[in-house]
Amino acid sequence: MERIGVGLLGLGTVGTGVYKALRNNQDVLLRRTGQLFEVRKILVRDPYKTRQVEGVQFLITTDFHEVLQSGVQVVIEVIGGLESAYAYVRDALTAGCHVVTANKELIAKRGKELEALARQKGVQLLYEAAVGGGIPVLGSIGYLLKANRVHRITGILNGTTNYILTEMEQKGLAFDEVLRESQEKGYAEADPSSDVDGHDAKYKLAILARLAFEAEISLEDIPCRGIRGVTSQDITLARRLGYAIKLLAQAEQYGEKGPISLRVGPALLPENHPLAGVNGVHNAVTLEGDWVQDVTLVGQGAGEQPTASAVVEDVGNVLRLPRISGSTVEHPPVLSGAEEGGSRFVVVETEALPGLAGAASLRDKLEQINLEVEQIGTASFGSSTVLGLVLCHWNASYTNILLAELGIEVKRLEHYPVIGVRKKDRVKEAVVTG
Amino acid sequence: MERIGVGLLGLGTVGTGVYKALRNNQDVLLRRTGQLFEVRKILVRDPYKTRQVEGVQFLITTDFHEVLQSGVQVVIEVIGGLESAYAYVRDALTAGCHVVTANKELIAKRGKELEALARQKGVQLLYEAAVGGGIPVLGSIGYLLKANRVHRITGILNGTTNYILTEMEQKGLAFDEVLRESQEKGYAEADPSSDVDGHDAKYKLAILARLAFEAEISLEDIPCRGIRGVTSQDITLARRLGYAIKLLAQAEQYGEKGPISLRVGPALLPENHPLAGVNGVHNAVTLEGDWVQDVTLVGQGAGEQPTASAVVEDVGNVLRLPRISGSTVEHPPVLSGAEEGGSRFVVVETEALPGLAGAASLRDKLEQINLEVEQIGTASFGSSTVLGLVLCHWNASYTNILLAELGIEVKRLEHYPVIGVRKKDRVKEAVVTG
Repeated sequence: MERIGVGLLGLGTVGTGVYKALRNNQDVLLRRTGQLFEVRKILVRDPYKTRQVEGVQFLITTDFHEVLQSGVQVVIEVIGGLESAYAYVRDALTAGCHVVTANKELIAKRGKELEALARQKGVQLLYEAAVGGGIPVLGSIGYLLKANRVHRITGILNGTTNYILTEMEQKGLAFDEVLRESQEKGYAEADPSSDVDGHDAKYKLAILARLAFEAEISLEDIPCRGIRGVTSQDITLARRLGYAIKLLAQAEQYGEKGPISLRVGPALLPENHPLAGVNGVHNAVTLEGDWVQDVTLVGQGAGEQPTASAVVEDVGNVLRLPRISGSTVEHPPVLSGAEEGGSRFVVVETEALPGLAGAASLRDKLEQINLEVEQIGTASFGSSTVLGLVLCHWNASYTNILLAELGIEVKRLEHYPVIGVRKKDRVKEAVVTG
Repeated sequence: MERIGVGLLGLGTVGTGVYKALRNNQDVLLRRTGQLFEVRKILVRDPYKTRQVEGVQFLITTDFHEVLQSGVQVVIEVIGGLESAYAYVRDALTAGCHVVTANKELIAKRGKELEALARQKGVQLLYEAAVGGGIPVLGSIGYLLKANRVHRITGILNGTTNYILTEMEQKGLAFDEVLRESQEKGYAEADPSSDVDGHDAKYKLAILARLAFEAEISLEDIPCRGIRGVTSQDITLARRLGYAIKLLAQAEQYGEKGPISLRVGPALLPENHPLAGVNGVHNAVTLEGDWVQDVTLVGQGAGEQPTASAVVEDVGNVLRLPRISGSTVEHPPVLSGAEEGGSRFVVVETEALPGLAGAASLRDKLEQINLEVEQIGTASFGSSTVLGLVLCHWNASYTNILLAELGIEVKRLEHYPVIGVRKKDRVKEAVVTG
């Protein structure tokens, strides 16, 4: 039996979960790894705060250096934020400690530098909890799919937005309403922008793509759109045409060490796609590799227990498993304009109802000017009518062409990429009334 | 760079895939593990057979000892079957070689003895490809969920039966018809009994439960029912009540080192269950642990490429990762009668149509004798009518009670466990006509 001293930075929701998991499952880890993990010090901001977990009072300190001086080999960072977390992680690595963190922003923005420091010091830096909550996706890529060339990643990486979209669909409510409810229930932050504007998913995608493609991903190279523009009408109409709308994070590499395209934004998935049924706070990632074909991992993307699970799994591996491959390409070629070429769901909100005949004649009209219409549907909601078109081979110029050709007063025009191929009827005219 | 000699036993579909994957992805493995894997000898039965892969002719031998004498550190067994595979694996371990195998029957039946031998010789025995094709499920349990107490496993572990059930549903065809088609397409064996009678899923469940619960599972402790008794009528009626019928493998442990219940057989899953949408040859496993909550892994359960992927991933780990925990409980307590207590879908085929009024009055009748009816539905198919009941708190005596109470001539009575809870309307009377 080997005794391993652990320092814990942060005792909020995740920190409390990590402390409890390490204590409750200490026996399991000991049996399976031969290592006994003991928390020696816990760094907090307010030492007088009442804590929901017993026995921590004598471990608490407000001095980071006390943590490093308590004989710890592993430091767990679950404070969050960027600057102070960065300083702590850097200093812990410099002091020769292994570091486990759940901090996606830190790894997405400073991961390259911190990884290099860890390598130089001969210690590990692990961050499974930063992506997909409890889902062991980084470990799967690094240890269990390392003989594969992973060339495509498609993920639902943010639980808050997936919960909001699910509620909007199931209750037919508007974005603002569901957001307010989610904030009241604690499922969304008071300042929700990191989640609903897609930044959280962008950080996670950058971490996944870096590991899978062995290339440094710059956050500026990820076009990012959130879900504020998604309406429950769009969701309803998409569903009636056979699709779910999800906030998707996508990355693809064209050939080994080839150009990479990345994107975060709402997109349509055919109902039979493995990610289409992933609802609520669940997260999921589909990885496509040259030999494994496709593997999808689904699990709870947030919450005290799943996040603590991922942190503690890393703690159990940090002294045991070899480092995940080190070398990365510095400035990989990045494809822009990834928004073009595929199928596109275009939603047009108007007051004038085209009706079944109108929709069919519209389709003929668009096909005469060589816009291939795969599916078409209309739905009315109160005084307004929404027209939905799935167009093939999307091109940015189509927006203006459509506005000109439609010949109707347009209140709103929104468009979403369509992922995968609907395997049922390719062309379907679903003219429905909401 | 370390050069590792590899011996390959078998050059059928999987063996050919493994050879190609090792050759094509040799560079990827070298970059990520620092090890260069070289196939030195390939054991085949017929040395004169035309091979679909180039460059193997000078590696082929029909003498197993030549493989061991060619300086190999890793032996890959992809011959299948029990006796000769057992002898080869035993001899390879005895000779101090690490062994990677895709042979679920071998591991389910002789795994305990072979693991002990491997431990004694200080080598590893890995078999990721034996369960779930390319899905890295054993590695996930062993390395990425080892800090969790996994207490429940629910899996779709056989691709052939999942394909058959999917085709029966989508095309409304009978089991025999779909089986014949599957055999013609090569998706089912000429002798399909290992798949359709559930034995293949049973082997895989035994392997999963052994690893997750750290307990020796005896195959005799797994009640096993195949899909020969499932009709497309049952599937249709279940779907209309909101469920999918899948061949499920289930294992549950009640408390750490507590009693275990195991089962393979067709069961109903609510449509919103993560496994309900897993169709065709895909496999999936949901693992529930005390901290991670639920993680579901989905991927291709068979086929040359996914199986080769799992084998080659093991090859890349065999010299690198530590042994997955060794100790197992020898004779864990096993719960029988796991078939009782939960909800049950009972299908009664008859000629006399009860109709909507009949179904409702039947429900009253059953509730008067304290049989709680959660859902009820009828469907007619040609001359026969099928009545479907979802009953709570199933008890084996209900079959006779039902036959007595129904008061109609029964042509067929079949019942299936219902897994999970339908989250929509708990009670629904769907009286439909097929």
